[in-house]
Amino acid sequence: MIILERSLEIASNMLIASFREKLMPKLVTRREFLNLLGSAGGTSATLKAGSALGLLPAASIANSLDLLALGPNKKKVAILGGGLSGLTVAYELGKLGYECTILEASHRCGGRIFTVRNGDLIDEIGNRQYCDFDDDPHMYFNGGAARIPSFHNNLLSYCKELGIELEVFVGENNNAYFQDDALLGGKRVRVNDYKTNIRGFMGEMLAKSMSEQEMDEPLTEREAENLLSIIRSFGDLGESDLYTGSSRNGYKSGGYISHGVQKDMIAFRDLLQSELGRRALTAYEGDQGPCLLQAKGGMDNITNGFLRKVEDRVKYRAMVSSINVSNDGVEVTYDQDGARHLLQADYCFSCIPTHLITGLDHNFPSDYVKAMKYVRRGDAYKAAFQAKERFWERENIYGGITKMAGRSADIWYPSHGIHQNKGVILAAYNFRGGSYHTNMSQQERIESHIKDGEKIHPNYRDLVEKPVTIAWHRINHMLGCAARWNRNFGGWTQEEEFMFDTLQTPLNGRHYVIGDQISVNVAWMESAIRSAHWALEDLDKRVRSELA
Amino acid sequence: MIILERSLEIASNMLIASFREKLMPKLVTRREFLNLLGSAGGTSATLKAGSALGLLPAASIANSLDLLALGPNKKKVAILGGGLSGLTVAYELGKLGYECTILEASHRCGGRIFTVRNGDLIDEIGNRQYCDFDDDPHMYFNGGAARIPSFHNNLLSYCKELGIELEVFVGENNNAYFQDDALLGGKRVRVNDYKTNIRGFMGEMLAKSMSEQEMDEPLTEREAENLLSIIRSFGDLGESDLYTGSSRNGYKSGGYISHGVQKDMIAFRDLLQSELGRRALTAYEGDQGPCLLQAKGGMDNITNGFLRKVEDRVKYRAMVSSINVSNDGVEVTYDQDGARHLLQADYCFSCIPTHLITGLDHNFPSDYVKAMKYVRRGDAYKAAFQAKERFWERENIYGGITKMAGRSADIWYPSHGIHQNKGVILAAYNFRGGSYHTNMSQQERIESHIKDGEKIHPNYRDLVEKPVTIAWHRINHMLGCAARWNRNFGGWTQEEEFMFDTLQTPLNGRHYVIGDQISVNVAWMESAIRSAHWALEDLDKRVRSELA
Repeated sequence: MIILERSLEIASNMLIASFREKLMPKLVTRREFLNLLGSAGGTSATLKAGSALGLLPAASIANSLDLLALGPNKKKVAILGGGLSGLTVAYELGKLGYECTILEASHRCGGRIFTVRNGDLIDEIGNRQYCDFDDDPHMYFNGGAARIPSFHNNLLSYCKELGIELEVFVGENNNAYFQDDALLGGKRVRVNDYKTNIRGFMGEMLAKSMSEQEMDEPLTEREAENLLSIIRSFGDLGESDLYTGSSRNGYKSGGYISHGVQKDMIAFRDLLQSELGRRALTAYEGDQGPCLLQAKGGMDNITNGFLRKVEDRVKYRAMVSSINVSNDGVEVTYDQDGARHLLQADYCFSCIPTHLITGLDHNFPSDYVKAMKYVRRGDAYKAAFQAKERFWERENIYGGITKMAGRSADIWYPSHGIHQNKGVILAAYNFRGGSYHTNMSQQERIESHIKDGEKIHPNYRDLVEKPVTIAWHRINHMLGCAARWNRNFGGWTQEEEFMFDTLQTPLNGRHYVIGDQISVNVAWMESAIRSAHWALEDLDKRVRSELA
Repeated sequence: MIILERSLEIASNMLIASFREKLMPKLVTRREFLNLLGSAGGTSATLKAGSALGLLPAASIANSLDLLALGPNKKKVAILGGGLSGLTVAYELGKLGYECTILEASHRCGGRIFTVRNGDLIDEIGNRQYCDFDDDPHMYFNGGAARIPSFHNNLLSYCKELGIELEVFVGENNNAYFQDDALLGGKRVRVNDYKTNIRGFMGEMLAKSMSEQEMDEPLTEREAENLLSIIRSFGDLGESDLYTGSSRNGYKSGGYISHGVQKDMIAFRDLLQSELGRRALTAYEGDQGPCLLQAKGGMDNITNGFLRKVEDRVKYRAMVSSINVSNDGVEVTYDQDGARHLLQADYCFSCIPTHLITGLDHNFPSDYVKAMKYVRRGDAYKAAFQAKERFWERENIYGGITKMAGRSADIWYPSHGIHQNKGVILAAYNFRGGSYHTNMSQQERIESHIKDGEKIHPNYRDLVEKPVTIAWHRINHMLGCAARWNRNFGGWTQEEEFMFDTLQTPLNGRHYVIGDQISVNVAWMESAIRSAHWALEDLDKRVRSELA
């Protein structure tokens, strides 16, 4: 009976506790919360996670190449492709006394650094276009590389060394829009409205979660205060740690001469209708986070900076037909001006997209060829319009990106040419899935971007003209955007690792594959440069041991 | 007995449930979580909060003034103070045929728009300084107004109208630093390292909270998926929704040619040691959020833009000595060139800081004077150094702000002059609490900024030179930074409202107080302009009814 009574006591205490919990407000005051924390036991992964930070890594700086300059004994180098990695190799080897020849298949260097201006050819196979934007200095867009993260040291270092002027690029812009047909009936929503509201509700969840979580170790009062202050500040929480709206996304009216009238909240469940939601808080991380820079006047000024040093070594419209690697060197044949030419070199650096090499005559071993074939290519797609006026500035948008759930995906506003009369607007940037547009006629592509843009900007159709589209996987001599190694965007498979390592092994120490295609961080100019530096340092070791 | 047995059954079921809860992992898988949600009842404030969003407010655009131009019957206007609001009034009334005279007490117009360059006087009472930065176009800093939010429409509209060139300003910069002696023994931490880690832990808390919260209405699978996807993406959560580090804040090594090696996490409790924490996620909200702009070549180009239109109407070093307001007009006397002058006008607009007016001779009613005296002034403080080299760029910092818990508070890096040899670094921006520095000698101020800066940048002392400091509450003819209305930074008190309304009531319809000092959003150029527009529209009503 004692046991029974004890059980009853327990049961009744538990019932009381359970009722008390139902009656008590779920969100306790901060003081109550702190008291609660002070007495709580239990377990929590949250507090256990994390490890002490060691010494912070030294500021990473540009790789300082320490390469051996050649004496009178010249060496010849064939560089296949005038992309950024090829230009880097030519520039650096030029400093050391190597005799470089760059064979560029197309009419221009720079590869996927491609600024489009009046008169430029967009050499899409089956859809050649000439750009007819107005011929003004600010009337361009970057059809390829468009952002320089401020920690891409080697690229920045070359910009400095080569006198390439830089300016700030606007990535994240709270005043740009979110648009998803599933969200509020397809109404455009300012990024800031989405962001402020979702953060408010998340903050409320966090505050509630704090008051309920059992902590493994109690937080000190100071720690708890700081955490709660971070949470409150994150969500801009009101009374009792509830989210009741914010002025962070501006006011409905007032806010200067009279008090501001708070905007209506967007209901939590409405916010949850859009798959774009997660991009509201995370679209500008890592390489895409602030601060970003761009080359003044167009990204191809980076190409031009290198060309000022190496242009005399470039052969344009020179299409490689064969590559023969021996222990002593490399023989390359190429077609130019209707004739076949032979180029004999001690070393060869190739930034030709690997899937275009396998069709040439070559004497590569099968593993090497297999790896070259293995690399998939992205199908990134961009389109741009000339805007008859800078209508986005009337909507307080100066640079930055509108995100849409539709296929045009991103609209980018130029960070340059502020308050000029006209501008070039990036009407579509479909990073993963550009084949959707490629399968259309040019007219269908344009119409689809206008339709998407009309969901964002009133009278869009009348405000834009002179469209160009760039379907990278149909651009002549490239047939693809960045290499795609990590096919499932998760951990790398063993197969992927093997192929990657194979391409990173110079054949006979004579033939190097370079370009962002042999990096784990594809599609960035920095990666192209790092691939060149990796190859140059490998070459240097070989040359030094040869001379030793 | 039946009742007893029933109680026992309940007790035993509750015990089992309680044990099961202890045994179950706190963090359920997503599928389990979704199942859980599907069957849950209970209450939650989270889901109830929020209201349907109405029609989005129209894009706010610049106020289009519709003011009556005068006929041959000229009117005279006295403008007291050449700050931005005064210049705006002079410019707009000039268009309409009013005869304006601007009395500016100091040697320059612009008020708290103050760009400091070689040779400039910083007219602090008791600490006059002449700036001796190198005489180069990019060697300046904005000692007052320094940012233009891209939704400050009226200011932007004037920039366009007056041909003032703009460029992007970097506010948030993930590569800048956080420093607090309480955090990791005072080690500088990249903003991105703090941010990524605190978000990771918060994301983990959220995911856990989601799995535990009872929902008032169950979420649909799609809603739950989207919410979890937002949370996971927010925190960059790993397996089982635990935060185990991220690559968003970069790698310890690798990440280009080889796989990246993840940085050590900063422990959750370490992150909670700093009161700076909440600023990691919220320092760049509202008026300080992206996108921000600045005037090319210095903010005083905004002043210059207005002066190109009105400079012939400015009397410099003209100190007001009396203001007499009648029903017919305003009489102002002022001292200039050692003589006292009389200015008779139909209307008077004053952007003199109100606490400096009350000492003049005047015939203001006591409520008006009381309100003028009531306004407190901020003690914002800035200091700047010439940097012998742009050492921050070597650390991947291009613009943006380092936040310190120390008194120097903020270090700002210039967004202009990228890759030049030298630059001007804002060594301190103490927005609330600048009196701390004012009480020091110039040498003590400088030493304190060097000591704070040394916690961030190695060899700081040797890298900086030619200091200037600006203690706004001791600057001649101002004696204060922005007005401070909302003394407790919470809701406005009745007293504050009353004083504010009093100053917003033009005396006899003849004397207007203008400037950001009569706005609820002090310290912004936009507010100064809006105050001018408010006054002009009020004047216009009076003039129209007079002429009717």
